[in-house]
Amino acid sequence: MDPDDVATAFVKHYYSTFDSNRVGLSNLYQEGSMLTFEGEKHQGSQNIVNKLTGLPFQQCKHNISTVDSQPSGPGGAMLVFVSGNLQLPGEQHPLKFSQMFHLMPTPQGGYYVLNDIFRLNYA
Amino acid sequence: MDPDDVATAFVKHYYSTFDSNRVGLSNLYQEGSMLTFEGEKHQGSQNIVNKLTGLPFQQCKHNISTVDSQPSGPGGAMLVFVSGNLQLPGEQHPLKFSQMFHLMPTPQGGYYVLNDIFRLNYA
Repeated sequence: MDPDDVATAFVKHYYSTFDSNRVGLSNLYQEGSMLTFEGEKHQGSQNIVNKLTGLPFQQCKHNISTVDSQPSGPGGAMLVFVSGNLQLPGEQHPLKFSQMFHLMPTPQGGYYVLNDIFRLNYA
Repeated sequence: MDPDDVATAFVKHYYSTFDSNRVGLSNLYQEGSMLTFEGEKHQGSQNIVNKLTGLPFQQCKHNISTVDSQPSGPGGAMLVFVSGNLQLPGEQHPLKFSQMFHLMPTPQGGYYVLNDIFRLNYA
């Protein structure tokens, strides 16, 4: 599978899970996974999903503008860089964001998220 | 040295070199390095610096808003995620951007850029 296709499939899966069943994201992280969310650091699948499910909104909709990917060295790991906007309930204007993921291959032929960094892009 | 301090020092060095002596960035890339610039892919130090020095402006000034970093696995490699704005000559408004770097340690105790992804954040 082409790395760009893997990245596109991952991004589609990640944000559709985020928007419909946030707790389901726990399958994408492992114990060594790291999330930096607006500068705040979290480590491990449980802590990361606690952070994401604890965000102060129940519904949201991510719209993706760009997806860039690169192999991050030998072995199938890859970097995915996303820009887009996030529509929250009751908010007239969507929030712009950028996010990067470092995806590591699993023995089962899939990927998990080793690194995740998220930032809102304030105007 | 704390990884966040390494990231901050790298970011300061990278953008001051970009703004004052763009060709000097060649020392930060190697043959396996990759740059994705606004979706356009370049590989290798020479090709990357050709792209950066060929950008259609001579002077610019990067202003950094946020720097996030994480170790990207064992061995000292790290990820650096930057947001900021770019002031170009003759432009009234700066351009917002996001950029990520994957830094790999060198035998000499420094780092080089294995992965570099740049995107402007259009309003």
